Amino acid sequence: MSSHNDVELLGISNAIVDVLAHIDDGFLDKIGAVRGSMTLIDADRAHEIYDMMGPATEMSGGSVANSVAGFAVLGGNAAYIGRVRDDQLGEIFNHDMRSIGVDIRLPKAADGLPTARSHVLIEDGGQRTLQTYLGACTELKAADINDDTVRSPAIVLIEGYIYDIAEGPALAKKAMQLARANGSKVALSLSDSFCVERHRQTFADAVDQTVDIVVADEDEVNALFGTDDFGATLDALDGRDNLFVMTRSEKGSVIVHGDEKVVYPADKVEEVVDTTGAGDAYCAGFLYGLAQQMPLEDCARIGTTCATQVIQRVGARIEPGVLESG
Amino acid sequence: MSSHNDVELLGISNAIVDVLAHIDDGFLDKIGAVRGSMTLIDADRAHEIYDMMGPATEMSGGSVANSVAGFAVLGGNAAYIGRVRDDQLGEIFNHDMRSIGVDIRLPKAADGLPTARSHVLIEDGGQRTLQTYLGACTELKAADINDDTVRSPAIVLIEGYIYDIAEGPALAKKAMQLARANGSKVALSLSDSFCVERHRQTFADAVDQTVDIVVADEDEVNALFGTDDFGATLDALDGRDNLFVMTRSEKGSVIVHGDEKVVYPADKVEEVVDTTGAGDAYCAGFLYGLAQQMPLEDCARIGTTCATQVIQRVGARIEPGVLESG
Repeated sequence: MSSHNDVELLGISNAIVDVLAHIDDGFLDKIGAVRGSMTLIDADRAHEIYDMMGPATEMSGGSVANSVAGFAVLGGNAAYIGRVRDDQLGEIFNHDMRSIGVDIRLPKAADGLPTARSHVLIEDGGQRTLQTYLGACTELKAADINDDTVRSPAIVLIEGYIYDIAEGPALAKKAMQLARANGSKVALSLSDSFCVERHRQTFADAVDQTVDIVVADEDEVNALFGTDDFGATLDALDGRDNLFVMTRSEKGSVIVHGDEKVVYPADKVEEVVDTTGAGDAYCAGFLYGLAQQMPLEDCARIGTTCATQVIQRVGARIEPGVLESG
Repeated sequence: MSSHNDVELLGISNAIVDVLAHIDDGFLDKIGAVRGSMTLIDADRAHEIYDMMGPATEMSGGSVANSVAGFAVLGGNAAYIGRVRDDQLGEIFNHDMRSIGVDIRLPKAADGLPTARSHVLIEDGGQRTLQTYLGACTELKAADINDDTVRSPAIVLIEGYIYDIAEGPALAKKAMQLARANGSKVALSLSDSFCVERHRQTFADAVDQTVDIVVADEDEVNALFGTDDFGATLDALDGRDNLFVMTRSEKGSVIVHGDEKVVYPADKVEEVVDTTGAGDAYCAGFLYGLAQQMPLEDCARIGTTCATQVIQRVGARIEPGVLESG
């Protein structure tokens, strides 16, 4: 992947600022949310839920955005396409990317909906439930994906959630076509299992035809293949030549690439504080290793180290020095 | 203090959202900042410094605002006067107050400067340096202080920093007059020693004539009396009937009220993560005890417990349950 003149990793995803708060036992029932899920909500509902939440902390988030940020913090050369408004949260989002060297490819939008926020509801034990108002993200257009914004990165990483927005399927397709034309690898992050259910056929077709690297957790990849357990999913991978990067929480991760298979254990962790961004951090570390042309096992090791750091504190993004302590 | 029908504590101060980031060794030199200081900066300089900072976390802050929030989290009945714009940071600030039960007395301003932010630069070891853009705070007016907004709290707590804004001295005087007329105690937080230097005579006159409770750290109270060391300051308190609540970092705190003197030790702490808000948290706990008519030693104990919690993590505000673990 060294023949490219552009960055190593370009992410295309929903640009979101997380609003993190701890919640009490009854909170999820009160708002009718499913534990561990991500629910898309409208502006009114966002205000309603925010009003019910306790004091919060704001940090830049977004699944693939977290991975891109992590990739940059590890020392990788990264760029990003996502839509924010020219409001204070948009400024925060872009700052947090630029300050670690990520090349922001779209200017802040001068009109339209406000920058997206995700209410991250954290329970004791680290389980998190997301209620997300997409705002400006929903106005990302296929026209935003072009030679100027995509260029020729080694890897184009597309977020599954992108398919939920109006022009999402069209812009993802366009990004994949540009990647193909420019010799970039295409990576697809499956985002969450409900997202996979919503777009199963589209995702399956993309994986059959265009996607080089599938990034997913166990539930997501099971949903993609319509299987009930991970064993059946592994069977379904037989004969495929995509690189499958699959995380399984405390069971570690499994990498499958054709005949090659790596099973990598999770690190032991004393206390899980907040699982937000664990998969994103793993993805950052794994792709960083891959961009350095490391063996898959080393990629898995770096991904694991990044995920281990993220789950031990509040917030979804890895911090500098993660590999030094690993 | 049980004869009042209004809240126990009303705070009047700069309403600020903190933008917290860890900094490397050379950062303070690069921006020409004095370690541990609070510097007021304009909008251009705020952008410049933000651009130089790494990824940040946003949390509601402001010195007396932190104390008011802490007082409410402890179970006290609190209200707040401070100016924010109707922007995203203003919404965040008000949310974080209201969600813990603080009565916000001013509506968000529909025009003028944006909500204030303070760039909190945190070094390894927890030392923090503040670069603050006051924005909307500078437009707080004497007219905002009136019977409707002040009412008759048991204690009115005024922030020294308020004297830095254009109508600050006038609005602080008005608040003190209303407090006197309504039978409220007047508390003045000295904010920082440079602030005391800027307004020494005004502060000294207020302490001589109107202020019941002085909240300060050692440097601030030394600056107020123009002394070089704490011993000389204690001598200067002789014959005064104000209640002096004085914090001394790892040396603990000293309370002097007429002939009564309490010397209270600091808790032992394994690792200081971020000293932001230590004095504010102490103030919250102390005033909470005072509002419950506890002996001064118990007030000092609660203040100490709150400060101990705050310095062991990033962020300036205490969290629920602080007294349970103390």
